[in-house]
Amino acid sequence: MAALFFGEMRYDPRDPGNEDNDRFVLSKGHAAPILYAAWAEAGIIPRDAQLTLRRLDSDLEGHPTPRLPWVDVATGSLGQGLCAAVGIALNARRIASEYRTYVLMGDGETAEGSVWEAAAVAAHARLDSMCGIVDVNALGQSQPTQWQHDMQAHATRWSAFGWHALVIDGHDLPAVLDALDQARRTKGRPTVILARTLKGKGISFMEGKGGWHGKAVKKGAELEQALGELQAQFVPEDEPLPKPAAPARRSRPAPKPANLEAPAYTLGDSVATREAYGSAIARLGAADDRVVALDADVKNSTFSDKFEQQHPDRFYETFIAEQVMIGAAMGLAARGAIPFPSTFAAFLTRAYDFIRMAAISNVNIKMAGSHAGVSIGEDGPSQMALEDLAMMRAQPNIAVLYPSDAVSTDRLVEKMAYHPGPAYMRTSRPKTPVIYGPDETFEIGGLKILRQSGSDVATIIGAGITLFEALKAHDELKAQGLSVRVVDLYSLQPIDAASLIRCAQDTNGRLITVEDHYPAGGIGDAVASAVAGHGFTVTRLAVAEIPRSGTPDQLVDHYGISARHIVVAVQGQ
Amino acid sequence: MAALFFGEMRYDPRDPGNEDNDRFVLSKGHAAPILYAAWAEAGIIPRDAQLTLRRLDSDLEGHPTPRLPWVDVATGSLGQGLCAAVGIALNARRIASEYRTYVLMGDGETAEGSVWEAAAVAAHARLDSMCGIVDVNALGQSQPTQWQHDMQAHATRWSAFGWHALVIDGHDLPAVLDALDQARRTKGRPTVILARTLKGKGISFMEGKGGWHGKAVKKGAELEQALGELQAQFVPEDEPLPKPAAPARRSRPAPKPANLEAPAYTLGDSVATREAYGSAIARLGAADDRVVALDADVKNSTFSDKFEQQHPDRFYETFIAEQVMIGAAMGLAARGAIPFPSTFAAFLTRAYDFIRMAAISNVNIKMAGSHAGVSIGEDGPSQMALEDLAMMRAQPNIAVLYPSDAVSTDRLVEKMAYHPGPAYMRTSRPKTPVIYGPDETFEIGGLKILRQSGSDVATIIGAGITLFEALKAHDELKAQGLSVRVVDLYSLQPIDAASLIRCAQDTNGRLITVEDHYPAGGIGDAVASAVAGHGFTVTRLAVAEIPRSGTPDQLVDHYGISARHIVVAVQGQ
Repeated sequence: MAALFFGEMRYDPRDPGNEDNDRFVLSKGHAAPILYAAWAEAGIIPRDAQLTLRRLDSDLEGHPTPRLPWVDVATGSLGQGLCAAVGIALNARRIASEYRTYVLMGDGETAEGSVWEAAAVAAHARLDSMCGIVDVNALGQSQPTQWQHDMQAHATRWSAFGWHALVIDGHDLPAVLDALDQARRTKGRPTVILARTLKGKGISFMEGKGGWHGKAVKKGAELEQALGELQAQFVPEDEPLPKPAAPARRSRPAPKPANLEAPAYTLGDSVATREAYGSAIARLGAADDRVVALDADVKNSTFSDKFEQQHPDRFYETFIAEQVMIGAAMGLAARGAIPFPSTFAAFLTRAYDFIRMAAISNVNIKMAGSHAGVSIGEDGPSQMALEDLAMMRAQPNIAVLYPSDAVSTDRLVEKMAYHPGPAYMRTSRPKTPVIYGPDETFEIGGLKILRQSGSDVATIIGAGITLFEALKAHDELKAQGLSVRVVDLYSLQPIDAASLIRCAQDTNGRLITVEDHYPAGGIGDAVASAVAGHGFTVTRLAVAEIPRSGTPDQLVDHYGISARHIVVAVQGQ
Repeated sequence: MAALFFGEMRYDPRDPGNEDNDRFVLSKGHAAPILYAAWAEAGIIPRDAQLTLRRLDSDLEGHPTPRLPWVDVATGSLGQGLCAAVGIALNARRIASEYRTYVLMGDGETAEGSVWEAAAVAAHARLDSMCGIVDVNALGQSQPTQWQHDMQAHATRWSAFGWHALVIDGHDLPAVLDALDQARRTKGRPTVILARTLKGKGISFMEGKGGWHGKAVKKGAELEQALGELQAQFVPEDEPLPKPAAPARRSRPAPKPANLEAPAYTLGDSVATREAYGSAIARLGAADDRVVALDADVKNSTFSDKFEQQHPDRFYETFIAEQVMIGAAMGLAARGAIPFPSTFAAFLTRAYDFIRMAAISNVNIKMAGSHAGVSIGEDGPSQMALEDLAMMRAQPNIAVLYPSDAVSTDRLVEKMAYHPGPAYMRTSRPKTPVIYGPDETFEIGGLKILRQSGSDVATIIGAGITLFEALKAHDELKAQGLSVRVVDLYSLQPIDAASLIRCAQDTNGRLITVEDHYPAGGIGDAVASAVAGHGFTVTRLAVAEIPRSGTPDQLVDHYGISARHIVVAVQGQ
């Protein structure tokens, strides 16, 4: 930390907003106190602020979060820092900056697969502006780490993944500085510094011993001894710490949101929302160069390849590795890009811990998941997202969108791009008819009432493919002389509670939700929660069991979310 | 597949239940048709069954699932097969079987970090009964794979992770058989066979070409040509395929569920549920040797180290790698063990895709997550599980338990062990008083009414630490002359809807839920969904925003889930 903050890194302690500052990610977030101490020495925070550590009224939390302007992404879930750093380093290329990205990891966390996803992507992208440092102290929380102090075993793995690996004694300051220097001079591949250390170095009763993870020294004799031993090793401070070299503040054109023309869809066209998503991000990317896209080898299914074709320099391929896709998107977002990572919605579950940390970080990532629900058909349950709405809604600050047609998809892609904070869009595999005119407007937190009359007996609420089942049910019921209201609930979070309550009041207090999703946490729960306290009846149609392979139409009917089931629900109440 | 099913593997095609059959995991689940074809040749399924592929009325789904008795775990989410295989191979040790475990992966999926988590754990455990085969066809779904046909790059990575790596031509049958033979003879470490292949080998317009992923050959001329070219290469079948060698059926004692004595807790003792969990699995492990435990380097926090101390041979350490922890548990469960993987509940999000596939597989895994909610205090949001209930409830077949005291924890650990299918238990960090006597019984799908009177004005529903806030609120309200009912909702899924409805009917239709969890998908939604259609009012107290560091008591109050807030909610209605 001393070598990085007072020898190696170029940054202006008075100007966290300088885009060309070198970046530091404390992947081993539990070491937060050393980060805050470095800042205190650098004059970023007052020294006595450190005494507020972990207090409710302090931003110096137990693990660093972006409440602090020098923190790009929250850490504390191990193995994520290197993934974020990939995105931060990719961003340097995007804005043509020379900044370098440093990541401090523990050796224990290199057991996380996400570290190796990031290692592979960084090597493939030749991210030589990245420097990883592994604090190889050989101690995990509960036991020695897997590879302990076998430095060769560490080096072999990193080299095998295409990194320049250096092994040093982490307590030898000149060796650390030299390694950082070598890393800076290494071109064409990232460097990792494997620093052999002893935990509790210099304190006789701690050094190299287990049982001290997250444990404070006892006040009294134990603390006295520890401080005494450390102080005896201090070289008297004759000179002040060197000041870091600050990069000049470069002026760059102020980014401005795109204002897209209406999309060229015609009512009744048949377009899958996943395809409209691909077209929308490509259009947006042409108008705003902060917009970037990331893929995990399904770009021809999510249609993010439309973006790649138009903007290959802002398209990042992580291959089949969803954790680094989301982690890199977090890093890109933290540095000013507007990243759209996408894959099958089912496979976003692979990155849920990253999504959780993106929510904690409140970064501007714009996720999209395709192939929602049983309507994908024959590929079977492993490819069907049936829990993605629950997973995303569980994070209170993620905007959750679920458009049904191409026009709403296009307009909501634009809205989500400029929505502050994380957002998610669910898209569908089957083609669906365009139901909105090109000038229709959509808001995050809105809904559309598609059918209504003065004599509606119930409100049917759908989104995605079930909206069309609702429209079919409406027509069938109308033929029987029953009127129902039909709502397109394209925004699940935030949700337009007032309009839903009004619909319920207008339709005998009867709401029927229908969704291509498991029952818990999806449209039904979102609606029930929004209208709670009014005594309305919310009837939920959802996929109530683990589904199987079949044709889309068969499955939609078999699992009880087709027009036929909606009709029965309306009649049966 | 020919070499494995008709040369290498020992199995009895007529007896899938033989515990000593060699195991095969098709990690690249999209290649399901070749698996079904091998079975047809082996006489496991009729040949014409293959024509039912992906039909709603067929178990031959788009990706293999355990609806089929020869499939241990569902595949189709890439990178999971090797993790499951680790568990399957560990199980061979547990039952002292000689069976071997084979896993067929694609080269594209080796970009998934989970593959490297499994690789590290398998090498560390010296699982020489495992043999990985990577079909290096160099083509992903949308583009060439990251390492393509650089066989040396593949071999270097596996060797670096401690595997015996063999590079062969995957189209050379004698070479494949020889490699399998070498793998069988290799002791002390697992072997991976890196088989260089060409996708579509032997069909001129397909061989080595992209664009054929998941795409059928067109009927007519294209199909005719493909079949013609393949048939021209067939050696006429003079001899029938060799029959696989079948292992003898060994008789083992029939497993039987433990029937534990009541735990030795005394009313009023102060015990964290996480500690009671550790004691419970250790007790259970002593009574039933199918019970095993897995940890990701937090065993001293989850208290699974109590199990390790008593049963070190059935305790598996994956280090900081949650995906392989859950994946290996799936493999163990599929082969008859009763695995209890546990970590901080927040870090189970890391393995959500595995949990999703465990639900699809309907395997007997018994997950536990500790350190639920803001009540962990100072460590901050990265360590707080606030979405785990939503994540688990979203899977319709996962039993979700949330005990509040040591006795209920102990009894529910036993219940979950013998509950068919996946189950999850949420435990808490703070100590809580023992409120149940040692002979109290608990059921999955039950609840307990702790306070009631004939004049209750509302029902307060809590679990975990909020149950004690509810009890405090009860006493404060009583002092004000207001009676409330208090429910311990220790089982969220399944949920005792009938009792909840009765409580609501008895208490003016007023239900107040309080939970150390985000609002969506937790206790509030579970209750609202269970009582839907009766016109009751469900008031939800939950953690409505991303929290921060602070003391447990401060945070519980600050985020609106303390007794004080419950009192206000009761008074305010």
